[in-house]
This record gives sequence, structure tokens and C-alpha cells, in this order.
Amino acid sequence: MNFNIDHNRSERIGFPEVIYGSAKSIETLFNIVEDVLHNSEKVLITKLQKEKYIELSKKYNDIFYDGVSKTCIIGNFKKSKKQNPDVVILSGGTSDEFVVNEIYYTLSFLGISVNKHLDVGVAGVHRLFEKQEQISKAKVIVVCAGFEGALPTVVGGLFPQPVIAVPVSVGYGVAKGGSTALNSMLASCANGITVTNIDNGYGAAIAAYRILKGK
Amino acid sequence: MNFNIDHNRSERIGFPEVIYGSAKSIETLFNIVEDVLHNSEKVLITKLQKEKYIELSKKYNDIFYDGVSKTCIIGNFKKSKKQNPDVVILSGGTSDEFVVNEIYYTLSFLGISVNKHLDVGVAGVHRLFEKQEQISKAKVIVVCAGFEGALPTVVGGLFPQPVIAVPVSVGYGVAKGGSTALNSMLASCANGITVTNIDNGYGAAIAAYRILKGK
Amino acid sequence: MNFNIDHNRSERIGFPEVIYGSAKSIETLFNIVEDVLHNSEKVLITKLQKEKYIELSKKYNDIFYDGVSKTCIIGNFKKSKKQNPDVVILSGGTSDEFVVNEIYYTLSFLGISVNKHLDVGVAGVHRLFEKQEQISKAKVIVVCAGFEGALPTVVGGLFPQPVIAVPVSVGYGVAKGGSTALNSMLASCANGITVTNIDNGYGAAIAAYRILKGK
Amino acid sequence: MNFNIDHNRSERIGFPEVIYGSAKSIETLFNIVEDVLHNSEKVLITKLQKEKYIELSKKYNDIFYDGVSKTCIIGNFKKSKKQNPDVVILSGGTSDEFVVNEIYYTLSFLGISVNKHLDVGVAGVHRLFEKQEQISKAKVIVVCAGFEGALPTVVGGLFPQPVIAVPVSVGYGVAKGGSTALNSMLASCANGITVTNIDNGYGAAIAAYRILKGK
Amino acid sequence: MNFNIDHNRSERIGFPEVIYGSAKSIETLFNIVEDVLHNSEKVLITKLQKEKYIELSKKYNDIFYDGVSKTCIIGNFKKSKKQNPDVVILSGGTSDEFVVNEIYYTLSFLGISVNKHLDVGVAGVHRLFEKQEQISKAKVIVVCAGFEGALPTVVGGLFPQPVIAVPVSVGYGVAKGGSTALNSMLASCANGITVTNIDNGYGAAIAAYRILKGK
Amino acid sequence: MNFNIDHNRSERIGFPEVIYGSAKSIETLFNIVEDVLHNSEKVLITKLQKEKYIELSKKYNDIFYDGVSKTCIIGNFKKSKKQNPDVVILSGGTSDEFVVNEIYYTLSFLGISVNKHLDVGVAGVHRLFEKQEQISKAKVIVVCAGFEGALPTVVGGLFPQPVIAVPVSVGYGVAKGGSTALNSMLASCANGITVTNIDNGYGAAIAAYRILKGK
Amino acid sequence: MNFNIDHNRSERIGFPEVIYGSAKSIETLFNIVEDVLHNSEKVLITKLQKEKYIELSKKYNDIFYDGVSKTCIIGNFKKSKKQNPDVVILSGGTSDEFVVNEIYYTLSFLGISVNKHLDVGVAGVHRLFEKQEQISKAKVIVVCAGFEGALPTVVGGLFPQPVIAVPVSVGYGVAKGGSTALNSMLASCANGITVTNIDNGYGAAIAAYRILKGK
Amino acid sequence: MNFNIDHNRSERIGFPEVIYGSAKSIETLFNIVEDVLHNSEKVLITKLQKEKYIELSKKYNDIFYDGVSKTCIIGNFKKSKKQNPDVVILSGGTSDEFVVNEIYYTLSFLGISVNKHLDVGVAGVHRLFEKQEQISKAKVIVVCAGFEGALPTVVGGLFPQPVIAVPVSVGYGVAKGGSTALNSMLASCANGITVTNIDNGYGAAIAAYRILKGK
Repeated sequence: MNFNIDHNRSERIGFPEVIYGSAKSIETLFNIVEDVLHNSEKVLITKLQKEKYIELSKKYNDIFYDGVSKTCIIGNFKKSKKQNPDVVILSGGTSDEFVVNEIYYTLSFLGISVNKHLDVGVAGVHRLFEKQEQISKAKVIVVCAGFEGALPTVVGGLFPQPVIAVPVSVGYGVAKGGSTALNSMLASCANGITVTNIDNGYGAAIAAYRILKGK
Repeated sequence: MNFNIDHNRSERIGFPEVIYGSAKSIETLFNIVEDVLHNSEKVLITKLQKEKYIELSKKYNDIFYDGVSKTCIIGNFKKSKKQNPDVVILSGGTSDEFVVNEIYYTLSFLGISVNKHLDVGVAGVHRLFEKQEQISKAKVIVVCAGFEGALPTVVGGLFPQPVIAVPVSVGYGVAKGGSTALNSMLASCANGITVTNIDNGYGAAIAAYRILKGK
Repeated sequence: MNFNIDHNRSERIGFPEVIYGSAKSIETLFNIVEDVLHNSEKVLITKLQKEKYIELSKKYNDIFYDGVSKTCIIGNFKKSKKQNPDVVILSGGTSDEFVVNEIYYTLSFLGISVNKHLDVGVAGVHRLFEKQEQISKAKVIVVCAGFEGALPTVVGGLFPQPVIAVPVSVGYGVAKGGSTALNSMLASCANGITVTNIDNGYGAAIAAYRILKGK
Repeated sequence: MNFNIDHNRSERIGFPEVIYGSAKSIETLFNIVEDVLHNSEKVLITKLQKEKYIELSKKYNDIFYDGVSKTCIIGNFKKSKKQNPDVVILSGGTSDEFVVNEIYYTLSFLGISVNKHLDVGVAGVHRLFEKQEQISKAKVIVVCAGFEGALPTVVGGLFPQPVIAVPVSVGYGVAKGGSTALNSMLASCANGITVTNIDNGYGAAIAAYRILKGK
Repeated sequence: MNFNIDHNRSERIGFPEVIYGSAKSIETLFNIVEDVLHNSEKVLITKLQKEKYIELSKKYNDIFYDGVSKTCIIGNFKKSKKQNPDVVILSGGTSDEFVVNEIYYTLSFLGISVNKHLDVGVAGVHRLFEKQEQISKAKVIVVCAGFEGALPTVVGGLFPQPVIAVPVSVGYGVAKGGSTALNSMLASCANGITVTNIDNGYGAAIAAYRILKGK
Repeated sequence: MNFNIDHNRSERIGFPEVIYGSAKSIETLFNIVEDVLHNSEKVLITKLQKEKYIELSKKYNDIFYDGVSKTCIIGNFKKSKKQNPDVVILSGGTSDEFVVNEIYYTLSFLGISVNKHLDVGVAGVHRLFEKQEQISKAKVIVVCAGFEGALPTVVGGLFPQPVIAVPVSVGYGVAKGGSTALNSMLASCANGITVTNIDNGYGAAIAAYRILKGK
Repeated sequence: MNFNIDHNRSERIGFPEVIYGSAKSIETLFNIVEDVLHNSEKVLITKLQKEKYIELSKKYNDIFYDGVSKTCIIGNFKKSKKQNPDVVILSGGTSDEFVVNEIYYTLSFLGISVNKHLDVGVAGVHRLFEKQEQISKAKVIVVCAGFEGALPTVVGGLFPQPVIAVPVSVGYGVAKGGSTALNSMLASCANGITVTNIDNGYGAAIAAYRILKGK
Repeated sequence: MNFNIDHNRSERIGFPEVIYGSAKSIETLFNIVEDVLHNSEKVLITKLQKEKYIELSKKYNDIFYDGVSKTCIIGNFKKSKKQNPDVVILSGGTSDEFVVNEIYYTLSFLGISVNKHLDVGVAGVHRLFEKQEQISKAKVIVVCAGFEGALPTVVGGLFPQPVIAVPVSVGYGVAKGGSTALNSMLASCANGITVTNIDNGYGAAIAAYRILKGK
């Protein structure tokens, strides 16, 4: 079989093809990883189940895995460390962590410096104000929220940077599946917020990368 | 015709039958108003079109009409004036005023002291903090919001009183019709907020009245 | 890691931070429980899976667990016993019990006297009338219902107290997930009923607490 | 043009073809009415706009029109009068009248004795009990309700007859368009209730007719 | 605990309380069954899981169980056998059988004669015509359908009897969960069809029973 | 302004660019029509309001307008007349005519022979059988239906040709807007039916054209 | 039991009855397969679970099974091999393969030559252009897509043949279950595309077969 | 009345308060405009009805109005002219122009250079390729689309810049109101696209401004 990998994507749109691990068999994964590593020194696999990671880790030594977000990186990967990271990720609670970490490790893989705060929920808004100075130094703000999804609205009213809002499928009843958070972010009365699909941490990271690359 | 008015409702559940004016003909309105005024010195008509108010004003001298909320009161009606009103109504903009005023005049009709602030939206959260002291003196807080409906969440995290959230059918796209605000309020991560139907200012006023009557 | 627990919430909004147990690992739970017990003599954990309760019960002696609602209380906790409890919880059947009990134990934890009746469904309305006297002595009525959610409407037409309606995710077909009960309660033609998210027993308890605290 | 009217329907399924007036031009109406009156002494037109009725009334003397439900009957039509009518129609308020009357006049057209009560809403359930004896004498009960649609549930729990529930597009917010009433009726915990489409008074009348014809 | 069983329901509305087995523990089931059998010689349990049936069968000898619909009957139960059964149940395929059988056994339990045809789908409409004579002899027709739910429309256009349509949660894509079949039945252009909730075989049986009892 | 008309579309995909008239100003229409007539001897405008047609008819002599479907054709246009037309369009009533005619005139414009039957609804299925021979001679069948949308299912079970189903926005309650008909057609248990958007008569005509062109 | 198999369907509508394997027991399957093989030399079973295939393979030697689409063929089955296949199936990724293969093997079973390309997604549109010549030689194009479902729109703008669009239930968040892809295909601005139910590969194959049979 | 205008917003988040004209009375507009012009030399009013513009133009000389998007600018406003504009706006047809122009004039008001192409729809993808060079020189790409909303996906796969997708409420049937375009954009398989609310041209402009300001 020919995987028809989009090798020149990196030249065309400035970031490499990433492997969506969830629905692929371990054999397919081995083949695609080998194919990518021919042209690149590292590869990112998102939504990779732990069992598959264990199989991959038998073959590759230089491998990293985050169990919360199921993100895997194989190869030469160094986190960028800056005093004032270019991207700051905000969320209201630990239940959003699975999305926050997908953003965090995708950006790290792409060489972008990034920081995260998981305890700045809207129901205790003073906790956001305590972080105000740190947040104001980032170039892009990514805000994750489930339930009623109000955090991006408050953040968008306080800070001038690009705000990327990521709805998270956390909640029950009307919040189940994340659509209330999604609609809330789209309908926000704070100006100039843009939104990704529910749980699309990877997409939010690439959106931040598109902004930073142009600078 | 027999209107079968629920005259003993006042004794049973503590507040009088109110007339929903929108779908009734002017003849029906005259008949019901007369019937109510036999047993009571005043009557409240909600969602009354201006043309019908004009007809009613030809017959009744002691009549009040608020064009924004289309609320009409006939008869002996005095606004309660207290230094620290029992109910405070909050909203983020003038577009919510048609609901805010329905609450305001229904509570006034019921003899409850009430105050309103229409400029405390979440996208400029400092404006809410400036009103913090006034709000903390009320016994019940009613919060109206359209669009993303985030205001009750912030209010519920700051204040200990009962918070009644009223979604408003203001907005476009995913916010059209008020269902995003409704779901956002129901899914709120602030604890112990309760919610009414979209645009149900009258219902929110009665809910506040039920709380205050028991005290 | 810093849990950034909102310790002064109790002073600000009058009730302590409660732990949502469902999505947290047992290690995280141990840490947060310890942290809370530093400042308080008891702690409430909602939606706690039985396996996690068993782990916690190995460490804490003074521990209570209700398997129906998965509510856990650790520490010094005494049920308030009053002749006429401040809150009465009504529902139409045993299938609503998992929500009824979350309300019941949350209020008990907060020191509020509370009673429950699970057999007053609308399809046999005479059973509600038999309880009429008991219900009329409570200060707040909480009504749980799944399926068509009609019970709060009948209760709201009979009693003058605050009525908090809680839709329950019981039913199949169009009632699946609780949204029919939710919409039915929001659209109720009985005046002044307010509504929580589906299955949000904890939220209803806090709403009742907000009302009672102000008295 | 050939209207291909289903003339032998009456023999096959026991009731005549009825004309849905709303979307037809006045010319088409004249042609179809003439065609039907060739084979029958009367004809029923539902949802007929007033302007079209006025046109028809210029040609036909023996014509009846109910402006509330927009029902028109041309030809030899006598209301059946029985002490205890075969069908009783119940609803909670005058806003349901446009559907109630469509049922009422369709049954009258079909020669069925029928009675209606428009003031037996669930929020004042005692008013239903006052009518209990009258209702118990009918052979079929049709219940119309908008908003939360709870009336059929209470009726179904009190009476043994066939109960046909008709949701009405009356209400605002989540009740808009009648879908909350519809779902509430379908999800009813009262046993053996069946439901028609929203505002389908004509369909409910035919359903009652199907039941009565078999007796 | 007091189960507050509605023992006089049978007198009031003409059919006994039935036990919904799905959500009840085996202990609760034993208690309720005993309680019912005090006043009645037989009891019907719907949606009873096989494991619970096995437990019950250890205690009761006179017990019947249909594994397809999970319907259980304990006690003195004889199927009514008539040349021309009062009720005929129609469906388009074996995938509807779990609902068809719930109707079949509930009616049998209530002493009603009933017949079923599971192979009369709309996509091969000639198969329906072959059964035309048999169907025309029943007093009530119950039609079950999943997917696009078109069968009741064709049946309603061919037969004069009461037609009760039961949507079945069979299908995938837009048909998933049965809502397409439900809406299709409600919107049917065949006159006088009434509809139950999705999969509500028990409700359809009681609706048929209400019709037949009045005759 | 440059309209950037896709002139070589005809060569590429075999049919000319058609003008969607509804949202265009009369000036824009004049300009585009002129531009198209430079390269082609005729032009089709769909959904053209009558007022705009009147304006166009002042300039162009060789102009045709169907008021029911609002279809306009300017230029050299001759209807293809064949004994057995290539396409037959079926629907259940005159309320579908606005879509039926859009299909009819678009195909006529494209030089395809076409016939239509508007009286073959499912609730009187015998009327379909009477047309069986005529229908069996067409190469493509297009079926339009509103309300419950059952007609394509019956047609698909009787005929071997390609069946294109077009949902029509005719109906009320759950049928409002055409989505019940759409879902019913997509979920059809008849095999190999394909579906267009609601009211998309033009699209159905082009789909038929794509099929016929390849033959 | 009598399966009432529609044996003369093949004569009537030109293709044999196919067995939907998913919901049938292995006994039922054996019976139906035997019944079909009496009149035909081969039989197609769709959505057959692997365990059932294994059981069937013990009895039948001449059996084929595709594990990705769960398609099973028993009996005399030869793939048509043509230089330029009549049908080409396109999709954007391997996650659509379970639907692509159902189309592929159903068409092969029916004797239609078919080819498939799984790597022509819209986000790298150049990959589609590389296949342009091959695609232009097919008589029917079937396009499968999940997520945003944009591929049929691009294909429909490039090629003149019939385009059958099949939405695939691949995606998360708003794309979950395939309804975004479905709506996107129905709303396509490319002309004359028709659509099947989500994941209905079998239906798309029969639709292609209907088109090809008429040629 | 005190409008409580957020005058220091400009300092805090870098762009001035803009007036949403649609729901405000002309008196309110005059007051707010005066208030803003005290602190700023120009003011932007979005969604301003023509009648209100005419009133405003009587008072202000230096006033601009775009009738397509209903955007009004009062005061000192000069369009930035750059060889290679910072923002390029793409859309597939003139029906999107009302949103395109709101973006165009909001950015012009903010001093950002901007260009627009309204003829690059996906159904004729070659037209996009012709503009490839121009587009590649912009710093931010804004893509507007109604119907199936596929354009941002194709654009996102071709260009490396930030892509802001704006769904437009153009279309009928399933596309009505813009939600199909919205979901399609959120579900896009092209990486790193972010989305605004339906028709939120103003929000997209501010999002672009946030990106450009940081550079």
C-alpha cells in the first residue's frame, strides 16, 4: 500500500503532517512513522491509545508519551524554554486537562514556548486576576472550557492578544458533549474571539502556530 | 362566557392571577379586567400591545404602561421605596431591557422594592465590581443575559444570595432565540443558580416573590 | 502541584467548596480531601464511584457513603432533625432516587433539615393531595421528575413556597437524557418555578441553601 | 386539470376527503368544492383564510365559518345534540381555542356529538376535578395543551377512556412551536395516551371518529 | 419502605398497575410482586432483564417470559383465542419484533385477542395487500416501524379502524434512535393516525385496551 | 465589476451556469444575463421574483416565466416531446408543485423530455398503481414529497430505475421546513434511493441530467 | 416460521434481496441463506459480525469476508475486471474505508467493475488533480467523506458524471455521528449531487447499479 | 441616563468600543455617538438601518455608509492603501457580500489594509488557484462561506497564514440560517482554522486586528 503522505505540506503550509493515532492499527502506525522519519527527525502522534504507545516504545527509544492527552512524540524533541512563553493556555479545572495537554505538547513539538494555568475558572474570577501580569506577556492566549464555557468571554474582555477558545466535552445534562460551551464561545459578547471544534486541542495549537509563524 | 378565573389563587399560593395580554382580544381584556377588579384594587397585564393599552386607557384613569416591556398596571399601585431594595436586577446591556422591565414592574406591582443595573456585562467585568456593595445588600439577585449568557456565572461566584438567571432572546447566529444563553445558565459551574424560560421576566419576578414571602 | 483551592469561598458566598469526585483519580482525591480538612471538619464528595469510596474508607473512619446517589461525606456530620423540615423533596418514582438522594445528603451535610417523598407522581395525583399538609410546612420545595416532567407544574399551582424543579435523566425515546423534562419545567404554566440542569441535585441543594441562609 | 379526487375513500376508510384550504387558490377551491358536492351534500374546508371564505360565501348560501379555527363547512350540516356527548375536548386556556375549535367543528361535520371545556389547566388542578363527572360520560377524550403540555398526563391518570393528546403551538422560549408540549405528551407517565402532530386538530377529530365508528 | 402502590387504579382507570422491571433491584421486585399478588391473581413486568427473570422463576412456578421483548407474566394468564382477533399488530421486519412482542404479551395479559404480522414492509407493498382481508377484521390496528416509518401512512390510507403507530428505535444515521420514524408518523398525510413514544409497546397496548374497553 | 462567470463550465461538467435569481438586484441580473447570452443562446434563472421577471420582460421578447416555481427562461428554448419521456416526476399533491415545476422547466431547458404526475400520494396508494406502466417507461424517476415523505420509499420498492428523492418544505408541526421528509427519505428501507436538499428542484434536475448525459 | 422473502424482487426492481446481518441470530441467518441459495447462486450479507462469519464459514466453502466493512459473500462470485471501471469510489482517508469497502464489495457482487482511491482529501487538493484522468473515465462517481464532508463539492465541480455522496460517521465534536458531513453534502453549491444516509455504503452501491443498469 | 461607556477599553484591549446599531433608537444613537466622539475622532456603527443612517447624516457631515453591510463610520477615517494588504477576505459569491463588507469596513476603520475577492467558490476551484499569488502575500486570511461552507477547508490546505472562517446565513433547506456552514468549518479536516459566530463579520475583523496588533 501507498500512504500518499503529504511530504511537501511542510513547505506549503509551514507545519508537518501529524498522525491521528486513534483509528489506526499498530502495523499502519509503524509504517507511517517510518515513512515520516525518513524525511523528518521527529513525529507527533495525537490521541494514541496507551497499548499502542507501549508497542511503539519497544521499537523507538527516543519516545515521549503524555497519558492524560494521549499525545506521543518520537524523535529529537526539545521543549522551548523562554522567560515569557509565546503562548499561555488557560482553563478552569483539571477536567479540561486532556485538551490542555494536547495543545501544550503539540506546541512544544513545534518548538513554541508555552505555559498553562488550569485553575482560573470564572466562578472564582479573582483567581484569573492574580495571573493577569503573566498572561499579558504572552503573544497568543488559548482558553479551554467545558460546562457553560464562559472563561473566554472574561479573558477576551481583559486582554488585547489573539484569543483562541476551545470548547471541552466536560459536563452533563445540557452541557453533555461540549455543545453548550461551543455555542457560548461563538456567541460571546467579547470581541474578536475565535473558536475551534470541541476538544480540538491539536487544531488550537496549529492556529496559534499559524499566528506566531507570521510574526 | 364564564372566564373561570382562579380567584382564590391569591389565598392558595399567595399571589394574584395575572393577565397575559398578548393573545387576548380587547373585548376579552375588558371583561377579565372588570372581573379581577371586583375582587382586587389593582391588576397586572403583561405583554400588552400598545394599541390595546390605548383602548384600555380610554376607560381607566389610574393606568400605567411601560412601552419597553409592554407591561400595564391598572389601579392603586405604589412603588415600594427602600434604601436597600430587596431585589436587584442585573444585565449586560440595553438590549435586555424589555425583560428587565417586566421583572421590575411585576415586582413593583407586588409591592416589592427593586433596583436595576443594565450595564454590568461580563466582557468588561470591572463594571460589575464597582456595583459590588450595592448588590450585596439585596435579598435576591435576578440576572438577565442574552448572547453567551455568562453573567449569572460570574455573579453566582461572587455573591451568596439566591440567584435567578433569566435567558434573553437577544443575539444572532447560534445565539438566536436565546437557547445558548439558556443552556449556558443551566450548565453554569457556579453553584446553586436556578433558571427560568427564555424571556420569562414575569416568572422570575414571581420566583423572587416566593422567596421573599417566606421570610 | 498546587490545587489552588478556593478556601475563602465559604466567607464570600456562604458555603464550602465541594469535591466533584467522578473524574478525579484516587491520588488527587486524597490530596484535595486532606487540603480541605485542614480548614474544615468535614468534606462532601459528589458522584464518587464505589471503588474510590472503598479506598477512601481505608484511610478515614468517620466516613458516610450513599450508594444510590454516590454521595460521600467525610468527617463530623450530624443530620438536622426538625419536626417540620425546612426543605421537602418530591418525586414521582424510585427511578428519580439517585438525584433525590444527592439533594438530601448535600442539604444534610450543610445542616439543613430535609424530608423526601418519592411516590407522588402526576399520573395518580391523589397521592400528592394526601401529602398536602406536610408539604405546606416546608420553607422550600424541591421537585424531581423525569419523563414528561409534569410534577413541578402541579406542585407550583398548589403551594406558595419557592419551587426548585430538577429534571431527571430517566426515560426513553423522546424522554431520553432528560431534555423533555427540562423543557417541560421551563415552559411550565405554573408561575415562578425555577429550574436546574438535568440531574443537578447538588445545584438544587445549594439553591435551597441560598434561599434559607438569607432568612 | 384533473383533481383525481379520492371519491371512493369514504367507502374504503369511512370518512370523506376533506379540503386543506390554506395553500389553495380560490379558483382551485371553487373547482374542488364543486367536484366534491357532486357526490356529497356537504364539504369541510380546514385552515381557510377569511378572504377566501368571503369569496366562497358569495357563491354558497348554506355556508358556515368559524374565524378562530378558520374552519368552513358548505352544505347540509346539523350539529348532533346528545345529553352526554360522545367526545369531550379539554384544554387549559383560551389560547388553545384555535385547535379546540378545529376538532369541535370537524366532529360536528362528521355527525359526532361533542363538548368542550377550555379552562381546566394543570396549574389549578381543582378546576379539572369540578368537571370530573361530565368528562367520565364521554366515550373519547381529546386533550389540547401548549406550553409544558402536562394536562393529558393528569387526565390519563384519572379517566379510563381513550385519550388523544394534541400539542398546541402556544408558548415562547423553549415552548415555541409546540415541540415541548409534543415531547411531554409522548413521554407521559400516564399509560395509553396517544398523540397527534402539533396543532393537528383535524387529525385528532378523525382519530376519535375512527374509534367511535367501530363501536 | 412503603411502595404506595396505586391499588385502586384498576377501578379508576380500568387496568392494573404494571411493573417496569428495568431499573428495579431484585429485592424491590420481589416485594412489589408480592404486594400486587395480594390483590390480583396475575402481574405483568415489562423490560425485565433475563437474570432477574431467572431469580423470579426460582420462586414462582406459574411464570412466563418472552426473551425478545423481555416481558414477564407471573400467575394465572390465559391467551384469548378468537377466530378474528380484536387487535392486529403489523411491522415491516424482524428487527421490530422486540416492540411487537411487548404489545402482543401486554394485550394477551389483559385478556385481549391479538395477532401479529412482521413481514409487511412498505418497500414491498404487495405483501401488505395479501393480508388485507385479515387486517380488515380487527377492531384496532397497531403498526410498528423503524427507519423511515412509512408503514402507518400506507395502512391508514387503506383501513378505517383506529390506527396506533409505534416508532421503533431501529436504524442508523438519521434514523438512529427512532426519531425519524416518530416524526414521519406524526406528520403522516394519512388522516387520524395517533402515535406513541419510541419503543413504547406497552403504551400502545394500553391505548388499544382503552379503545376496546369502551365498546 | 467583473462577474468572473464560469464560462467553460459547460465544457468541463457538461451543463451551463444557471443564475440563482432570488438574491440578485435587477441591475446585477441584467449584467449577468447579457454576459451569459454572449456565449449561449439561452439562459435559465431560478427563484426569480415576479417583479424582476416583469422588468426583464421589458427588455427580452423571447422570455418564459412559470409563476408557481418562479422559473424564468430567456432565449431559444424548445420543449423536447417524446412519446415516452426520459424523466418522470411524481408527487402526492398540488402543494409540492412549486418544486415539481422547477425540476420540470430546468429539464425542459436542458432539452430533456419530462412528464409529471402530482396526484400519486401514499395515503391512496392505488393511484400510484394506475400510473405504473407510464412510470416504468422513464429512464429516471424524480419523487417530490413533503409531510412524512413516504412516497419515494413506495416508488423505490416498485421500480428498478434511478430514484431521486426531493423533500419539500410543506407541512406544519414536526413537518415544518421539510426536515421530516428529508430524514424519512434518507432513512428509507427501499434500496438505492438518493436524496437532494429540501426544495432543491434545480439540483434534482441536474442530477437526472448527469445520469442521462452518460447514456 | 415463514421468512416471506421477496423472491420476485429481482424481476421487479432488478437486483436481489440482500441480507442485513447485524441484528439476526446465526440460526436465522442459516435459514435465510439456504432459502436465498435455492433461487440464486450467490448471496450478499452486509454488516456481518466476525463471529457469525466464522460460523457460516464452517458450513460454506465458497465464502468471502471483508473484515473492514464486515461484508460477506457466499457462492459463485467473480470480480469484474475492466481497464476503465464503471464506478470509481473516492475518499479522503483510511478512516472512511469501512464504508468504501461496503460499496466496493456490493458492486463487485452485482458484477459491476469498480475502483477506489482513499487518499484524495480536500485539505490537500492537489492529490485529487493527480487522479483526474482516471476519474474522468468512470460512468458513476461515489464520494465518501466524514468530518466537514467537502470532497463531493469539489468533485462535483470538476466532473460531469453522476456523483453519489456518502456521509461517513467519522469525526468528533460537531462532526460526531456524521450529520455535519451529511448536511454539508445536501447543501453543496456544486450542482446535481445526490446523497445517501450516513454510512449507507450498500445504498450508494445500489444507486450506482440503478444508474448503470439503465444504460 | 448614564451609558457607562467603556472608555478605557481602548487602552486595555487595544481597540475602541463599537456601537451595535440595530436595536438602538435614534435618540440613544445620537447620545452614544456624541459621547464617543468626546474621546475619539471617529466612531463605527454596525448593522445600522438605512433610516437611522439618514437621520445621522443630517447632523454629521463627515459620515460614510455601506448599504450592503449596513456599516456606518462617522468622523476622520482614511482607508489604508498598501501594495500588499495585510488582510485578504475570500468568499464564493455575491450573496456573502453583506458579511464580507462588514469585515472590510471594520478593518478599514481600524486602519488595516484589506482586499476582497468574492468569486473564488469551491465548486469551481480553479478560480481560487488564479488568485494564489495575491493571497499568499497577506498576513491574515478571512474566509466567508454559506451553504456547505467548504471554502475555508480548501484555503487552509493551501496557505500557511492564520485562517479565520466566517459562516454566512445564506442557503435554504439544511443550510438555512448558516449552521451547516458553521459546523462544516468547525469540523474541517484542514488544520488550525478558527471560526466565528454566523454572520459575525465584525468579530472576524477584530480577531484579525488582534493578530496584526501583536506583530
